[in-house]
Amino acid sequence: MKQLLRLDYTNCLQERVGDQGIERSAIDGAAAHLAEITERLNAARDAGSHRFRSLPVDPLRGEHVAAVRHLAEKLRPQTRNLLVLGIGGSALGTIALQGALKPATYNLMPPEARGGPRLFVLDNVDPNFVGQTLDEIRREDPRLEGTLVTVISKSGETVETAAQFLLVRALLAEALGDDHPRHIVAITDSHRGTMRAICEAEGYATLRVPDGVGGRFSVLSPVGLFPACMCGIDIDALLDGAKAMDERCQEPAADQNPAAMLAWLLIELARRGKDQHVLMPYANALYPLADWFRQLWAESLGKRVDRKGKEVHCGPTPIKALGATDQHSQMQLYCEGPNNKVIGFVDLQTQPRDLKIPAGPEADALAYLQGSTLGDLLAAEKRATEYALVESKRPNFSITLPQLDAHCVGQFIQLWEVTTAFAGELLDINAFDQPAVETGKLATFGLMGREGYEKYRAMVEQKLG
Amino acid sequence: MKQLLRLDYTNCLQERVGDQGIERSAIDGAAAHLAEITERLNAARDAGSHRFRSLPVDPLRGEHVAAVRHLAEKLRPQTRNLLVLGIGGSALGTIALQGALKPATYNLMPPEARGGPRLFVLDNVDPNFVGQTLDEIRREDPRLEGTLVTVISKSGETVETAAQFLLVRALLAEALGDDHPRHIVAITDSHRGTMRAICEAEGYATLRVPDGVGGRFSVLSPVGLFPACMCGIDIDALLDGAKAMDERCQEPAADQNPAAMLAWLLIELARRGKDQHVLMPYANALYPLADWFRQLWAESLGKRVDRKGKEVHCGPTPIKALGATDQHSQMQLYCEGPNNKVIGFVDLQTQPRDLKIPAGPEADALAYLQGSTLGDLLAAEKRATEYALVESKRPNFSITLPQLDAHCVGQFIQLWEVTTAFAGELLDINAFDQPAVETGKLATFGLMGREGYEKYRAMVEQKLG
Repeated sequence: MKQLLRLDYTNCLQERVGDQGIERSAIDGAAAHLAEITERLNAARDAGSHRFRSLPVDPLRGEHVAAVRHLAEKLRPQTRNLLVLGIGGSALGTIALQGALKPATYNLMPPEARGGPRLFVLDNVDPNFVGQTLDEIRREDPRLEGTLVTVISKSGETVETAAQFLLVRALLAEALGDDHPRHIVAITDSHRGTMRAICEAEGYATLRVPDGVGGRFSVLSPVGLFPACMCGIDIDALLDGAKAMDERCQEPAADQNPAAMLAWLLIELARRGKDQHVLMPYANALYPLADWFRQLWAESLGKRVDRKGKEVHCGPTPIKALGATDQHSQMQLYCEGPNNKVIGFVDLQTQPRDLKIPAGPEADALAYLQGSTLGDLLAAEKRATEYALVESKRPNFSITLPQLDAHCVGQFIQLWEVTTAFAGELLDINAFDQPAVETGKLATFGLMGREGYEKYRAMVEQKLG
Repeated sequence: MKQLLRLDYTNCLQERVGDQGIERSAIDGAAAHLAEITERLNAARDAGSHRFRSLPVDPLRGEHVAAVRHLAEKLRPQTRNLLVLGIGGSALGTIALQGALKPATYNLMPPEARGGPRLFVLDNVDPNFVGQTLDEIRREDPRLEGTLVTVISKSGETVETAAQFLLVRALLAEALGDDHPRHIVAITDSHRGTMRAICEAEGYATLRVPDGVGGRFSVLSPVGLFPACMCGIDIDALLDGAKAMDERCQEPAADQNPAAMLAWLLIELARRGKDQHVLMPYANALYPLADWFRQLWAESLGKRVDRKGKEVHCGPTPIKALGATDQHSQMQLYCEGPNNKVIGFVDLQTQPRDLKIPAGPEADALAYLQGSTLGDLLAAEKRATEYALVESKRPNFSITLPQLDAHCVGQFIQLWEVTTAFAGELLDINAFDQPAVETGKLATFGLMGREGYEKYRAMVEQKLG
C-alpha cells in the first residue's frame, strides 16, 4: 500500500488568519458546485477529451511505456551523454523529474554511480549557453559515439528547437557520418508535421507526442518518460502515483478530492485579492517542480477572454520560492508587504537521508544545535515560517509528500494538472490553449525573414521603430 | 574607455502602450523631486552612511581587494573544491557572479580549463542536498586536502550557516586533524560575534564583512569578492564597473541618472497597479542575477510601515524569468492576464560567442533559419516579445549590457543597489532593514530548543496547534 500525498489548508482558514482567511461555511457552500464540476471533468476524462488524464492508464500507458522502455533499453548501454532539445513543456517536465529523483550532483558523478547517461537539457537558444554545453559534451565524447540527441517538438517548427536541431544534427553528421541518424530520437507527432517528415526521410527512431495532450500536460507521456527512463527513473512508479492521484481527483465530495479543494481555495483567494500564488518547496530536489508548475498555472489560467468571449484578463501569477533559502530573501515581503499572496509549501514527511549536527568549538551560542539533524532544522524552519505567516494573517497551505520517490512525484504532478483543469472551470476559461504565444511567434518568423511572414516584420518595425 | 550599460524605457511610455504607460510630462514633473533625492543620497553616501556605495572606491576598496587577493593567491594553488557556507545575501551574490562570468558547465570542466576550483554554494540545510554535495566533494577529494571551506556569517548565529559549519568542520577535523583550521576561511564581523570568537580560538584565516553593509548589499565586499577571486573572476574590473555606475547615479538630472529613472518608473508604475516587477534576462548567464535582484527588491521594499511609522504594507513583487525560454511558459500570462506587471529585459549588445545555423535535411519549413545565428534568433525573439507586450499595452524596459564581462556585471549590480536606495526614498520607507525575518528566526530558535527562547515555541504551538 503506497502512501498518499496530503494537503493541509488549515492555515488558509479564518480560524487561523482571521478576516484574511476563508470561512468554513464558504467551503461547505462550494461543495455542490465542486461536485458538479467534478462530474463534468470525469465525463470529459471518460470521453477522452482531457487526454492528459488518460496517460497513467491503459491502453495509452501500456503503449507508451513499452515503446519508451524498448528504446531506452536498447540505447542506454551505448549512451554516456543524453542531450535533450526542447523548450517549454518539452523541457520543464524532464528538468523537474531529474531534479526530484536524481542527485543534485548527478552530472558530476562517475558513470557507475549515476546509473544513466549525463543529462543536458537545451531549453534556450542563447549561443553562449548552447556553445558551452556542446563543448562539454564534445570534450567528454569528441567523436560523439556515446552521445544521444532527443529532439522534442510536436510540429518540428518550434523555432528554438528547430534551430538547435539543425545545429546539433550537423555536428553529429560531421562526427559520425552515415551512422548519425542512429544517435537521434525524435519525440513528435505520430503522423503530421515537419519533424515527422524529417524523421521518415532520415530514419530516426521516434516516439510520439500523443494527440490531444498539450505541451505543459505532457510530462507523463514519452516527452518526459523517455529521458527519465534513460536516466534510470522508475517510470511505472511515476505513472502508478499519477493514477492513484487521478482516482482521488474523481471524487465528487470536495473534502475527499484534493484537486477540487486546492483549485477552489486558490481561485477563491485570488478573487479576494490574493492572486500571487507562491509554490515554496522545503526541499532543493522539488524546486524544479515549481518551475514546471509556473508554466502550468500561467499558460493555462492567464487568459484575456472567458469561454463566452467576454474580456476578463484573468490569471493568478505563479511564483517559485525555495525553503529555507528564501526565508532570507522573500519572507520579509511575504510577511510585511501587501497581503496579496498565498504561500504553498511542499515538504517531505520523511527525508531520504539525514545528517546529525555534531558538537563544535566552544560556543555556547551554538550548543542548542548539537544532536539535532539538518532534517529537524529544516522542519523547524518550515513550521516557524508558517507561524510567521499566520501571525501576519497570510494564508498558506502545505502539500506533504510521504517520501521522495517516483510514486509521490507522480501524485504531485497529476494533482496540479487536474487542479489546473478545475481552476479553468472555476474561472470559466479555456485552460488548454495559449493564444498569445502566437503573436510573438509570428513576429519572430517575420524578423527572421521567413517567407510569407514579411508583414509581421513590418508590424514590429512600425510599432517599435 | 569602457562601455556603459544602457537603459531604454520607451516601451513604458504612453506613446507606446497608451493609457497603460507613463506620460512624458510626468517624467518632467518628477525631475525636481528626483534631483532632491539624488542630492540627499549623495550626501548620505559622502557621509559614509550608505556604506555599500563606498565599496568600489578607496580606501575600503583597496583594503578589501588587497586582503582578498592575498588570501586567494595563497590558497588557490592548493584548492580543488571551494565550498561556500552561507545563505541569503551571503550566497546569492556569489551564485550570480559565478553564473554570469563563468561557463554554465564550470564544475564539469577539467581543472586546467576552469582556472579555479570547483565551486559549491550550500545555501540551504536540506539534508539531501547537503549530503549529496558533501559526497561529491569527498568522492573527488577523499582526504579533503584540496578542499577549502568559506563560511560567511556576520554574527555566526545564522542558524543555517551555523549548522552547516558544525557539520563541515567536523568532517574537516576528522580528515585533516590539526591541520584542518587551514582549510577554513571565515568572512565575518571584524570584532564582534560568535564566529569572530570561534575564529580567534581556532586560528582560521578571516576576511571581514564591513560594518554598515547589509547582506543583500554585500556582493562587492569580501563576501562576494573572495569566492569570485578564487574562481578567477576579475574583481578589479567588477569594482571599476560598479564605480563607473555609481558616478552616473550621483547625477542630479534624472535623464542622466539611470538609478533615479529606473526607481521612479518602477515605483510610479507600481502606484498605478503594476506592482509585479519581472526581471527577464535574455541570457542564461544573467539569470542568477535575477535571483540576486529578487532578494534586493523584496527585502528592501517589502515593508509594513513607512519612516513615519504609518502602516503601508508596501512592496512590489520581484519575479524572475528567462528569455527566450519563458516565452513558452510565462508570456501567455504576461500578455493576456491582468495588466499588473512591468517586464524588465536584460540583454547583451554583443554575444561572447555565436553559432551559425547550418543547412539541414530537406524541409522548406526550416529553410529560413539557414545562415542566421543563434544570437540573431535570440535577438529577434526578444524584439518579438517586446512587440507582443507593447501590442497588448504592457509596459516593459530593457537594460543592455555592452558585453558579458566583469565591468558590465559590476555596473549592473551597482545600478540595482542604488536604484533600491532611490525606491526606498520614493516609498519613504527604510530600505535597509528586514524586521520580519526576526519572527521566523525566534520561532526557529524556540522550536530547536535554544535556551531562553522557550516562549517562542509555546507561541508557535498555541497558534498552529
